[in-house]
Amino acid sequence: MSTTQQTATTHDTARVPSPQEHGIGARVSIHPHCDDFVEVIVGALDDVETAGLTDGLTIETDEVSTYVGVRETPAEERLARYLTGVIAAATRRSDGGHVVAHILLSRGCPCVRSCDVTTTELPSAAPVDVEATGIPAVAHWALYPLLEGTSDGADHMPLIKAAIEAAQRRGTATSATHYATRLNGDVAEVLATAISAWALVGTEIPHVVSHLTVSVGSPTAGAAQ
Amino acid sequence: MSTTQQTATTHDTARVPSPQEHGIGARVSIHPHCDDFVEVIVGALDDVETAGLTDGLTIETDEVSTYVGVRETPAEERLARYLTGVIAAATRRSDGGHVVAHILLSRGCPCVRSCDVTTTELPSAAPVDVEATGIPAVAHWALYPLLEGTSDGADHMPLIKAAIEAAQRRGTATSATHYATRLNGDVAEVLATAISAWALVGTEIPHVVSHLTVSVGSPTAGAAQ
Repeated sequence: MSTTQQTATTHDTARVPSPQEHGIGARVSIHPHCDDFVEVIVGALDDVETAGLTDGLTIETDEVSTYVGVRETPAEERLARYLTGVIAAATRRSDGGHVVAHILLSRGCPCVRSCDVTTTELPSAAPVDVEATGIPAVAHWALYPLLEGTSDGADHMPLIKAAIEAAQRRGTATSATHYATRLNGDVAEVLATAISAWALVGTEIPHVVSHLTVSVGSPTAGAAQ
Repeated sequence: MSTTQQTATTHDTARVPSPQEHGIGARVSIHPHCDDFVEVIVGALDDVETAGLTDGLTIETDEVSTYVGVRETPAEERLARYLTGVIAAATRRSDGGHVVAHILLSRGCPCVRSCDVTTTELPSAAPVDVEATGIPAVAHWALYPLLEGTSDGADHMPLIKAAIEAAQRRGTATSATHYATRLNGDVAEVLATAISAWALVGTEIPHVVSHLTVSVGSPTAGAAQ
């Protein structure tokens, strides 16, 4: 749930909700660590639109981040291709300099203000196929199934563990740190790992959020990037 | 819960846990949008240490972000002063340029790998007092009570709503956006708002996480920052 829950609207459906009905989407902020960051960010957002990576998505940018709402399936693949594309474009436009992206993935909370999604069916987790970028990244990743009034209190840990084990089998989930798991690999693989895990947990838990801080081209391992 | 839950250790205590026992802490990444970002980041981390703002905290920096673990009370105030200090220092060192910080606040998950905290008492929410910086900020804020096997499925929405209403009364929580609430105000007030709300929810829910993307000196309202 977001912190904006102040009213309650109920959506009740026995069918699998569309990505838009289920609120499948993301927020992303891009941080090129260079003096011409505005040109890099605006250019990268233009690049992904020109490349057709915004098809089926609703894009709204404000001064803090960009909202990416999915309107059409395949939801996870559209998100993975867009997010991979914008990070790769910003990296290319900053001449391989240091670029960090912060990503929030959300599903199951479609309203800006509160709503209780009482779907009896949940979207399935389709495999995510994203072409490698050749750009290595390191990320801190956290996955959050959310506590809500409708929660049954059941132990969802086996599902969370399965998602993490799948990430480990991919070879991207390499180690644990405080409050997060470290992911290493091509930008596309890092995003596919997190998005696939979030979607898998979302097949049993309606409202699941995940956060990633993705770092590319970090010049030092000794300073916060 | 973090994505690193693969083993289970149980801490059972009938007393209020210390900040360290309860895993009260944060991760922060600082993003100065300038060519000399390394000097700005390293300098800012040095500034807060010199100012004594790391007292009672454990600081560990890697190439993605900096872990801030609280060892001594007052936990929330130590976090608020440290995080406000490092953002203010980075802003000063970048000559008032554009600086973004991403912050993860966590409580109730003290282990790098999984653990179930079964405290019968939870820390109280002490008021947070942080001196204003004179630096205006805008932030996107999300607050997550976490779904765990020990969850009772009770409706915690009244507590979440109370935390949000408190933020609105402070005047910082100004509007809702997709997946987050927008906060505006002095950097110190924005952080105090989010940290106080997170601590308040934590008086009834053991494991609570909050994420903030804090933007200072944004030159445009039309591009993702």
